[in-house]
Amino acid sequence: MNGTLRRRYVILAEGRLHEAKTAHGVLRYGKDEVVAVLDSTLAGKTAGGVMPGLLTDPGRDAPVVATLSEALAHSPTSILVGVAPAGGRLPGEWMETLRGAAEAGLEIVGGLHQRLAPEFPGANVWDVREPPAEVPIFSGEGFGVAPKVALTVGTDAAIGKMTATLEVEREARRAGLSTGFVPTGQTGVIIAGWGVCVDAVVSDFVAGVSEMLVLQAAKSSPDLILVEGQGALSHPAYSGVTLGLLHGSCPDCLILCVSPEDGPGYAGVPRPSPARAARLYEEVAALVKPAPVVAISANTKGLTDKEADAFVERISTETGLPTADPFRDSAKPILEAAMRS
Amino acid sequence: MNGTLRRRYVILAEGRLHEAKTAHGVLRYGKDEVVAVLDSTLAGKTAGGVMPGLLTDPGRDAPVVATLSEALAHSPTSILVGVAPAGGRLPGEWMETLRGAAEAGLEIVGGLHQRLAPEFPGANVWDVREPPAEVPIFSGEGFGVAPKVALTVGTDAAIGKMTATLEVEREARRAGLSTGFVPTGQTGVIIAGWGVCVDAVVSDFVAGVSEMLVLQAAKSSPDLILVEGQGALSHPAYSGVTLGLLHGSCPDCLILCVSPEDGPGYAGVPRPSPARAARLYEEVAALVKPAPVVAISANTKGLTDKEADAFVERISTETGLPTADPFRDSAKPILEAAMRS
Repeated sequence: MNGTLRRRYVILAEGRLHEAKTAHGVLRYGKDEVVAVLDSTLAGKTAGGVMPGLLTDPGRDAPVVATLSEALAHSPTSILVGVAPAGGRLPGEWMETLRGAAEAGLEIVGGLHQRLAPEFPGANVWDVREPPAEVPIFSGEGFGVAPKVALTVGTDAAIGKMTATLEVEREARRAGLSTGFVPTGQTGVIIAGWGVCVDAVVSDFVAGVSEMLVLQAAKSSPDLILVEGQGALSHPAYSGVTLGLLHGSCPDCLILCVSPEDGPGYAGVPRPSPARAARLYEEVAALVKPAPVVAISANTKGLTDKEADAFVERISTETGLPTADPFRDSAKPILEAAMRS
Repeated sequence: MNGTLRRRYVILAEGRLHEAKTAHGVLRYGKDEVVAVLDSTLAGKTAGGVMPGLLTDPGRDAPVVATLSEALAHSPTSILVGVAPAGGRLPGEWMETLRGAAEAGLEIVGGLHQRLAPEFPGANVWDVREPPAEVPIFSGEGFGVAPKVALTVGTDAAIGKMTATLEVEREARRAGLSTGFVPTGQTGVIIAGWGVCVDAVVSDFVAGVSEMLVLQAAKSSPDLILVEGQGALSHPAYSGVTLGLLHGSCPDCLILCVSPEDGPGYAGVPRPSPARAARLYEEVAALVKPAPVVAISANTKGLTDKEADAFVERISTETGLPTADPFRDSAKPILEAAMRS
């Protein structure tokens, strides 16, 4: 699909709209329109009604429908698999729905490890995790990018880096700045309609692909480029992806994403404190190009307002950095810190 | 080819035996035998004669021959492409030689980015850089490995990590210890006859593959497992590979490889000092599992003996760590530091 055309999505989220993070991301942030959500268990409601607080713009709401033929009445161009199947592979019923959608001429869009193109020969399929055929080695050209580049990093994976990045971008646009959002994971790529899932790239090329994406975003000379981070420097399975992106994207500053979770993380490995993580990100970045941590993005999901305020206050004191939950409150303190740096 | 069979290699190094690093590695360290080297410009000599100091065991020397038919007289099982072609793709003459070798029943072995299997349909081809079809995500099982695990790291890529690893392994065997060498790059894999080129693996799986390799090496319960490092934490193009391997292989201690080179490194990025690099490797490793840098391996290639001694002395003073050039001198100080840790 031509990058300048807008998609009109029907999102397949059967039985699981509540937890369908890709669907939520596209509904809240997507450049494309969602015309219907397919979840027979919630049919008759709307996405915004099912998930209060998700949509800041009521114009982005979409009806939840029970069947593909109801969805087709809303003239979608594309069907998006909006949840990862529990067993890893798509259940037979979903395959039937996708086949029906393909027969109706819809593009099939999936961000799964399981590639869909081989399952639907002849159909128009966008496997979002499929890396480009040609990927470059890091060259250093990224050092010369003119716009300011900010990258989100975290004390853990799945801590809200994409959300923080998109909320800061939104705040920047509200403030009249021009922005470039660099998507590096499947939901980010679907939201923006371009980008690369850097964790699906052969490891030799992660830095090169990250650099390439920033160079692409710099072409329009925006005031601020916001790069979606991946994994964490302290995550034993994904730290290599994180570092390839950190060095390859040549950021000028970092936004550290944290959450109140403690106890052991992945494989029993403890999460570093925000202060320790901030120091180490800076030291490791500086091996290639200095990039101070300028602000903390706190994910206070699940806390009461009072608890959230206390958490934000504590992290700000511990780190000496502007701290905010850009989803619950405002991304303004983070944006201002990035632009000051 | 069955892992328990020994290969008998003819090495294709036409016109470039002097710079054929893979050939040198297999001649000096390989578990398999080299029966001939193909380089018409040096025909009539022997590999050891052409490269004085390469072979410590004269029994490993091999004749240099001019033609494939001369090489076939030495009953090879396999032909190894021992140099990377200048232009990236194999020249037509080499292809002819390989085709002849395949017709004579030889296995073709290549460690290039360019895969050879598609070029020689029907032939027995080992594309060393081809990752296994199934690669795991890091699980944490590596934390429970019983033998001591040492990993080589460096202040730059291509600084002699593989050589240091193999020299320490050799010294350990001389000292009566049982060892496991974990190969993570093409030459290491060809030398050992097993392993994975971790930089050719999709980035999500680098830590998992590294863990898997260490678990395999641990099966025979050796006294010491030596993991070949890749890249450098400070290398802008390959740092992600380095960190995935550092966290995934769960080392107990690190051996830092340094060289006297200064001036800008890759893409103009300066190399960190050995002391700074040692501190940062330790801090970053400790995010997942503590692993002190116990010794420095100094690559003094190109220096006089006097210069080399001065360099080793200086690095030892700067870092406060046992320092040696295991190739020029002895790997004993490094081995002892690793076993003490």
